[in-house]
Amino acid sequence: MGAFLRQIPLENLERSLSKDAKTLDPEETISGALETIRRLRDQGTRVHSITNTVAQNFTANVLLACNARPSMTINPDEVEAFTTRADGLHINLGTLDQGRMEAIGNSVSIAGKTGKPVVLDPVMAHVSPLRAEFAKNLAGSMSILRGNGDEISLLKNHANSNVCVVETGNRDAIAYKGKTILVENGHPMMAQVIATGCALGGLITALATKTQNMSHASLAGLLWFGIAGETAAQKADGPGSFSVHFIDALYSITEDDLRQKAKVVCKP
Amino acid sequence: MGAFLRQIPLENLERSLSKDAKTLDPEETISGALETIRRLRDQGTRVHSITNTVAQNFTANVLLACNARPSMTINPDEVEAFTTRADGLHINLGTLDQGRMEAIGNSVSIAGKTGKPVVLDPVMAHVSPLRAEFAKNLAGSMSILRGNGDEISLLKNHANSNVCVVETGNRDAIAYKGKTILVENGHPMMAQVIATGCALGGLITALATKTQNMSHASLAGLLWFGIAGETAAQKADGPGSFSVHFIDALYSITEDDLRQKAKVVCKP
Amino acid sequence: MGAFLRQIPLENLERSLSKDAKTLDPEETISGALETIRRLRDQGTRVHSITNTVAQNFTANVLLACNARPSMTINPDEVEAFTTRADGLHINLGTLDQGRMEAIGNSVSIAGKTGKPVVLDPVMAHVSPLRAEFAKNLAGSMSILRGNGDEISLLKNHANSNVCVVETGNRDAIAYKGKTILVENGHPMMAQVIATGCALGGLITALATKTQNMSHASLAGLLWFGIAGETAAQKADGPGSFSVHFIDALYSITEDDLRQKAKVVCKP
Repeated sequence: MGAFLRQIPLENLERSLSKDAKTLDPEETISGALETIRRLRDQGTRVHSITNTVAQNFTANVLLACNARPSMTINPDEVEAFTTRADGLHINLGTLDQGRMEAIGNSVSIAGKTGKPVVLDPVMAHVSPLRAEFAKNLAGSMSILRGNGDEISLLKNHANSNVCVVETGNRDAIAYKGKTILVENGHPMMAQVIATGCALGGLITALATKTQNMSHASLAGLLWFGIAGETAAQKADGPGSFSVHFIDALYSITEDDLRQKAKVVCKP
Repeated sequence: MGAFLRQIPLENLERSLSKDAKTLDPEETISGALETIRRLRDQGTRVHSITNTVAQNFTANVLLACNARPSMTINPDEVEAFTTRADGLHINLGTLDQGRMEAIGNSVSIAGKTGKPVVLDPVMAHVSPLRAEFAKNLAGSMSILRGNGDEISLLKNHANSNVCVVETGNRDAIAYKGKTILVENGHPMMAQVIATGCALGGLITALATKTQNMSHASLAGLLWFGIAGETAAQKADGPGSFSVHFIDALYSITEDDLRQKAKVVCKP
Repeated sequence: MGAFLRQIPLENLERSLSKDAKTLDPEETISGALETIRRLRDQGTRVHSITNTVAQNFTANVLLACNARPSMTINPDEVEAFTTRADGLHINLGTLDQGRMEAIGNSVSIAGKTGKPVVLDPVMAHVSPLRAEFAKNLAGSMSILRGNGDEISLLKNHANSNVCVVETGNRDAIAYKGKTILVENGHPMMAQVIATGCALGGLITALATKTQNMSHASLAGLLWFGIAGETAAQKADGPGSFSVHFIDALYSITEDDLRQKAKVVCKP
């Protein structure tokens, strides 16, 4: 349920900052992201998503539109079988309850043993002490941590340097292995539809099953989501039709469109 | 999941019945409602909604379209934090389970202590004895009680005269402090989309955070919903497209439209 | 969450295989299905659906579009009242948890005592041992069992010959009392929207309250769904708009359309 407001236009788009070895090259980074999307579209994947009841249906439809097959069981006694069968694990802390907490523990343990990527969306962990504590304990063992500014502030000291941290907001930022990627795509209307942030977490999980580079997976998700949002906004009369066009755009947007519209800055 | 059928046209629309001090003036009442909508659109609000899993997503999207930010946690150990942070509390008894009952108890207690409006939607309380008992215990401490005829019949003797009672049906009726407001807006297609009644309860909660007058909040919700429904029905090919146009209409309908299309009768 | 891919066109449509008494006549079978649809549209019905949280909203909207009124309570202490009030019971094992298991036991018991049809959708029972065991215990007392190939393979030996078995896939098959009906309607886009299979189970339940012949109820559901899917696909730009047009098509499709587009083969 994160926000995707991007009200500050990126006036000076610096696609190439410098070329020394320690700096990411934006074109290469975008190409890595697009390659990850291509693999997902060609090969498909399976994501087990333990997410909140508000976001489940929309998240599942986003995943299907992007060629990932979701399963969403939250029974602690069943998640082992579903996590074993899946290629990646998506953990979202909205509508957290006792059963979900147990299920998350079991699933993360299985994903760890079998080397599958795990993405955490610590929804509103800054509001609830119980959830904050639970999220802090999880953060260090995640592949990717995705949240808004409040959530990331709470958790970033609990995630080690191997965790890819994705902060969404007016401008999205990916921090990974000492480098930062800024993404300027998206549309304010995305914040008017519930669960867009939650569904983004699911999509990034699907992408993380297709690359070893978690910043490529994260950037792929942000570009796919953001540019589909821009496309949908052009056709929408409000958030109802926006949501419909958004799913259609995720499904049909071309790689050329994604490459041409990507607004990305890399920082050393 | 209430119904909004309005099959009986209000043939003789009596906007001004009498002008004595004990009678509500429809124009003033409509103006109070529209002022409440204007405040919500200008200022925003936060609603904590403990509602059924069928209605959560649609209710959240209705709230966002109307400039309210929803939270929907149902964990009894977390609702204190979320209710404290919210401006109003929405309680809906659909898919009631043990966890929800505990959560509702905790939330209502916090809302009472902090003086926040609470709206109860006793979904199908007339069907289940357990739910009927639970609803009767809640009814007296609510700001607004919203339900269909069966639900209201069950509970109206348990709500004291300070509770604003909103009965939706062929014609909607607001009973508050000995006076009655009848509303004739809406469209039969609203009953063909699940959770419209549930979402109305959420919207009325958002509006109740913007006025001390619970009949203004209730009327504002009924007019906004009903006239958005009429607008959407003109464009829809069935309940699928109706639902999409309805969210768009909530988002974009103007105050002028609401004022011109309002069909309201006040009774002493 | 079953799939409805129908990629193999039925090249040689054999509507009339043979006319001996032991063979179903396709025209008669289609007429029985259409008569069942007509009764549901004319009379309405009530379905109690214990289904997964991912599918609840979509299933409820499908039921409303087809003139059935859903209730979806999962509280074990309340399902007796709701099942008693309903005309049919829909059981779906997605997002199965302890509460749902208890509720299903209670509901099935009441439906059995009161002679109401029960439809089981054993979602992903082949993946989870706990769910497989639970589904096997239920299978024998169902009116209709609906699933994909993996699910049906697991359970068909546990369903006696009175259970109507509906296997959905590239081609749908109904097996009932030693005879088989094959249905070729539908569109691949149906598998791109979550919960279409789950919602089909709900619709077949509604139809099963309108006939004693469970193959008529099953065929009615497959035709209504499949031909609405074909209609929606002609207008859709992707799975988002497909889902909207699909609900509209369920609501507005005519009996003539259903009869003309039905692709059915009966086997002795």
